[in-house]
Amino acid sequence: MSTAQAGAGAEPWSSGELEDRLRALAEERYHHRHPFNLRMHEGALSPEELRCWILNRFHYQRNIPIKDAVILAKLDDRELRRSWIRRIHDHDGRPAEDGRPGEDGGIERWLRLGEAAGLDRVLLLSGEGVLPAVRFAVEGYVNFCRHGSPLEAVASSLTELFAPDLMVTRIAAWERHYPWIEPEGLRYFQVRVSQGRRDSEEALGLVHRWARTRADQERVLAAFTFKCDVLWSLLDAVDHATAVPAGASDAR
Amino acid sequence: MSTAQAGAGAEPWSSGELEDRLRALAEERYHHRHPFNLRMHEGALSPEELRCWILNRFHYQRNIPIKDAVILAKLDDRELRRSWIRRIHDHDGRPAEDGRPGEDGGIERWLRLGEAAGLDRVLLLSGEGVLPAVRFAVEGYVNFCRHGSPLEAVASSLTELFAPDLMVTRIAAWERHYPWIEPEGLRYFQVRVSQGRRDSEEALGLVHRWARTRADQERVLAAFTFKCDVLWSLLDAVDHATAVPAGASDAR
Repeated sequence: MSTAQAGAGAEPWSSGELEDRLRALAEERYHHRHPFNLRMHEGALSPEELRCWILNRFHYQRNIPIKDAVILAKLDDRELRRSWIRRIHDHDGRPAEDGRPGEDGGIERWLRLGEAAGLDRVLLLSGEGVLPAVRFAVEGYVNFCRHGSPLEAVASSLTELFAPDLMVTRIAAWERHYPWIEPEGLRYFQVRVSQGRRDSEEALGLVHRWARTRADQERVLAAFTFKCDVLWSLLDAVDHATAVPAGASDAR
Repeated sequence: MSTAQAGAGAEPWSSGELEDRLRALAEERYHHRHPFNLRMHEGALSPEELRCWILNRFHYQRNIPIKDAVILAKLDDRELRRSWIRRIHDHDGRPAEDGRPGEDGGIERWLRLGEAAGLDRVLLLSGEGVLPAVRFAVEGYVNFCRHGSPLEAVASSLTELFAPDLMVTRIAAWERHYPWIEPEGLRYFQVRVSQGRRDSEEALGLVHRWARTRADQERVLAAFTFKCDVLWSLLDAVDHATAVPAGASDAR
């Protein structure tokens, strides 16, 4: 019996119990616990380490609207698409139209974060310096959404449930420990607090609506675990790439 | 040597010559020449035949935003996505937000066309009565865009170059021959005149920008031919399904 079918005969969990299990998984596997993130928030990262993270995380960011277009193409309900498409605009922005001013979007805000930290946007847009393991993790995420069921694709976005708290902690930590980064650069994180709350509520609602059997709920947990692994792997790669060679320093 | 590589060693055509070839293909294969369409515009269709077409064509319409989301997920340039995404809103509409009124979109307008012709929207939305060959053709189109290159996916939309003229002819023909259909029901066709012009200009610009070799230009023509076949097959299926049994009438 495969893992995905382990709960096939069992009663479905209540909504509250499913959420408790997501929360327990996040406690254990969400990247807020990753050593690199802990050092980031403690103020222990050098400017080079921080820039390495910003540059590599940008590769993730720029693929998010593609991932969301992949999910959009899986939604055969017009109302769902009309809601989900907002996520693509959140990252890509909107051109000015009909007298309405344009909107920058999250990718532009991330480019400004890079600039505030001393990274040229031309470098970020070139993709130069993105670590292979980061490319693999991001590609793995997009492909998971491409080949999985709508439920699995949406469930993999549930890490957004835990992102707003992380953003709030991060903003405070960066303002305190990395004053050399212009405050305007933190705008990406600020905007994601409210967007993340709204997006995760929407995704959680869909997951509760669609996952009516224990087997489906197990798939939700598996998708969430997979996504935690994507985020964790990204930090593993950056951590490894920026590690001071053994013996060169006692800092780590 | 395969067809796709037939032009590999040849000089690329000029923009004008590529467009001439598209036009020549359209003259031969675009569905404006299909017998069912000719009968539609001559006023020879019975209400049942017209309803059968509206119902089956709705299956195509409702899959267009999915096809466009598939294409969106292939565009790794943010500016291109910010433009292409408009097509999804054109069909799905937009919910009201930020004090801006909502927009119905093309799917809603097609549902109203159905109602104006005496088809219940619940029936249309159920998918009941969609002919198998229509399902296959539409699935073939979405999969062509899913598995093809961005160039091929975009080129397959170039039938829009010829849609506005067809819409203008259709509106006049329907107003004249099918006065039992409420004029408000023709709104879908009216809106597509300007949307089709804008969309086909955009797609043609991308095709000229991307297809720099003869081999790529041949792929453009192949994609366009494929798409003509999709539209033609849809009418074949409806024509066959509505055909009066041999001997029952001399009308055909």
